[in-house]
Amino acid sequence: MSYDENNVFAQILRGELPAHIVAEDDLSVAFMDAMPQSPGHTLVIPKEQAKDIFSISQVVLQHVILQTQRVARAVDQAFNPAGVMIVQLNRVGAGQSVFHLHFHIIPRWKGLDMKFHARTFEDTNVLAKHAKCIKGALDKN
Amino acid sequence: MSYDENNVFAQILRGELPAHIVAEDDLSVAFMDAMPQSPGHTLVIPKEQAKDIFSISQVVLQHVILQTQRVARAVDQAFNPAGVMIVQLNRVGAGQSVFHLHFHIIPRWKGLDMKFHARTFEDTNVLAKHAKCIKGALDKN
Repeated sequence: MSYDENNVFAQILRGELPAHIVAEDDLSVAFMDAMPQSPGHTLVIPKEQAKDIFSISQVVLQHVILQTQRVARAVDQAFNPAGVMIVQLNRVGAGQSVFHLHFHIIPRWKGLDMKFHARTFEDTNVLAKHAKCIKGALDKN
Repeated sequence: MSYDENNVFAQILRGELPAHIVAEDDLSVAFMDAMPQSPGHTLVIPKEQAKDIFSISQVVLQHVILQTQRVARAVDQAFNPAGVMIVQLNRVGAGQSVFHLHFHIIPRWKGLDMKFHARTFEDTNVLAKHAKCIKGALDKN
C-alpha cells in the first residue's frame, strides 16, 4: 500500500483540518489526539510522508523520537499521571487507523482503564485547554 | 526512583541471566521477550543504565529507535503478522515491570487477542527457534 495523501494527518499537515498543536518544527508536529484514550493523549508525527515505522527515513525517525521524548516529558509534567505509554502501531492488523506514522503519548492513571480504540471525539475546548497545559510545560523545559 | 542495577535486563546485559539475543552492538541489545504476548515478541534495550524514556540520553535513544526499526522489519519478515505494535511503557502506572528502558516489538494477528501482561514463561526451545528466524531475517537485510 502506497502513502495516501488524503489521510487526516496529511490534511492536518497541509492546514486543511484543524488540530490543537503543542509543538512544531521543520520535521515534525505534535498535537492533541482528537479521540483521546485518556486526558493528555498527544501524538507526534513526522512531516515526511511515511505510513509506518518500516517506511520512514532514519534521520526523520531519530528526530521524531527525540520530539516524542520532549513532548512526553511535558505531558508528564502537565498531567502528572501514574505512568506514560508510548505506542506506535503499524498496519490495520495492529490497530493502526491513520496511515501516516504517529507516536502516541498516553498518560495512564490507576483505575482508569484505557480504551485502546477511542471512538468519540473529545470536546474541542477540552483539547484546547490540554494543549495549553502541555505548551506551558514545554516552555519551562 | 534511581536506577536499580539488579533489574533483570541489567542482569542480562552483564551475562548473569540467559536471553535469546537476536542483535547486539555497542549501544544496544535485542532479545526475545521471555513472556511473549504473541509469537515473535522481541525487546530492544539500551546498554545505558536508563530506567525510562525520561532519563535516557538523546544519542542512545536515537540509536535504540533505529535498532527497533531494523529489528521490527526482521520480525515482520520472519513472522509475517497482520501488524506490528511498538510499545514503550514508563513507570508501574503504565504497566512497566522491568525498570530498564525497553521497546516492545509485538506482532499482531487477527483473532489473536494480545495479553497486555503476559505472566507465563515461554518454552526456551520455542524462543530459540523464534530468535533464529529473526536473526535469519536480519542477515538478509
